[in-house]
Amino acid sequence: MAEARARAAGVVGLVPTMGFLHEGHLSLMERSATECDQTMATLYVNPLQFDDPADLARYPADHDRDLALAEACGVDLMVVPGAEEMFPNPPLTWVTVEGIGERLEGEYRPGHMTGVATVVTRLLAGLQPHRAYFGRKDAQQLAVITRLVQDLGFPVDVVGCPLVREVDGLALSSRNVLLGECRAEALALSRGLMRAADRFDQGERSATVLEAAVRDAVPDGAMDYARLCEVSTMTRATVAGGETVLVAAARFGPVRIIDNVFLVADHHGASADRGIRLGRPSLIYGSE
Amino acid sequence: MAEARARAAGVVGLVPTMGFLHEGHLSLMERSATECDQTMATLYVNPLQFDDPADLARYPADHDRDLALAEACGVDLMVVPGAEEMFPNPPLTWVTVEGIGERLEGEYRPGHMTGVATVVTRLLAGLQPHRAYFGRKDAQQLAVITRLVQDLGFPVDVVGCPLVREVDGLALSSRNVLLGECRAEALALSRGLMRAADRFDQGERSATVLEAAVRDAVPDGAMDYARLCEVSTMTRATVAGGETVLVAAARFGPVRIIDNVFLVADHHGASADRGIRLGRPSLIYGSE
Repeated sequence: MAEARARAAGVVGLVPTMGFLHEGHLSLMERSATECDQTMATLYVNPLQFDDPADLARYPADHDRDLALAEACGVDLMVVPGAEEMFPNPPLTWVTVEGIGERLEGEYRPGHMTGVATVVTRLLAGLQPHRAYFGRKDAQQLAVITRLVQDLGFPVDVVGCPLVREVDGLALSSRNVLLGECRAEALALSRGLMRAADRFDQGERSATVLEAAVRDAVPDGAMDYARLCEVSTMTRATVAGGETVLVAAARFGPVRIIDNVFLVADHHGASADRGIRLGRPSLIYGSE
Repeated sequence: MAEARARAAGVVGLVPTMGFLHEGHLSLMERSATECDQTMATLYVNPLQFDDPADLARYPADHDRDLALAEACGVDLMVVPGAEEMFPNPPLTWVTVEGIGERLEGEYRPGHMTGVATVVTRLLAGLQPHRAYFGRKDAQQLAVITRLVQDLGFPVDVVGCPLVREVDGLALSSRNVLLGECRAEALALSRGLMRAADRFDQGERSATVLEAAVRDAVPDGAMDYARLCEVSTMTRATVAGGETVLVAAARFGPVRIIDNVFLVADHHGASADRGIRLGRPSLIYGSE
């Protein structure tokens, strides 16, 4: 549809974050700075997407460091809205994405995906970027946002960017700093996913076999799910390939972590996308 | 919040309609043309907001007349999206407004207010107007849209405009053309509301008394509801004044009609807003 507002002379990119930035966030900022004329990032710990108050209370923060890192990555404007600014009144309006947002994280974290969809809608409505950057680590979140942008007709390109891993394979997450002594144990999840990716590259296509490769690597009782899904709908796929993603979630000590590998195959061939592995310890390695 | 996109040199007004325009719609267009540099109107019979397929099937249409009328009222751009353009895929994304959208019409027409909120969000997201004009005849719809714009942070001013009535008091509605022989009977609803407005102007403040004035005027069995509500929340008010609205809905033959009077009182005084009454038969008077 026609847009009523003249777009700015330049293309504006948006990188929404909850702060405590790591190289995953920084890669989004750098990509936006490369592709867009102006890059805005938001830093807002969105209470709507926390199903667990304890998780919200301990969510790590370091605003000064975040601002310096964002600036160094080419961010032109860092938007740090206060709670009052985002929601002067407790919101009554909710954005839900049927099916895609209800499975997996939607089951394990009731209300989480609605909280994400609602706040992302608010950021897109208020900030009106041309491009918005999200990490593929949150594969289901990316599917939800891609679909809501399509259904609600926001004139924005949603750009999914590679997951970033520590040297030892752990997917970067602001919550990793809370793993403490459980960090070594938590490596089991990425290790299982890497094994599944190897099996896929060797020709294995069975969802059951690939999911089992993850489950077998994770201690009994820690696993929430390991499931092969169609990328855009997050429905279960029985056969890997096409556009599928093997998503997994598990709990280690006080922290619940999620991770995935994209398993894609078409007539050109097949490839497991394990993300990007850092060549040196990350900024927020371990619990330091 | 800062907006990423430079606003056009001028202010853009939006008038969303479902077509088969009457003087209510035209008054919105004229007001936008007066207040804004550019006026866009949309003509889209939104299937998401019809709970009754028969109601959707018989909804009247006259595109050629609509386009000529809109142009004469100063509309610069008439957007007439096809179903394919609005929803290339059946939408999975829904915008709901808790409470405000669940009462009254939300009870009598399940899904209606969610359909309205979802499509209005889509129009605001895609068209990015600075001002959006809605009639006060749909008082609950106006409350829902006002709240969703606030909660989702759309940088748009929602402008509520007076209800417009036929010479004999019937509130204008595109569906009036379907009343046929029931038209005379249907006048009972506006007559009851006018009586309540008179009572209010004479000092009556009791919700029970004012609601009864409406119910007493409408034939047994035709009434869906007559309720005094707070304007912004649509919760029931027991005392008229402040910002209240007496909303009512009733069924006459094949048509369900809604109507209202705003009953406002503050330290300056009190006034019942009955809307604007045409001095001549409307464009779509009766069933012609």
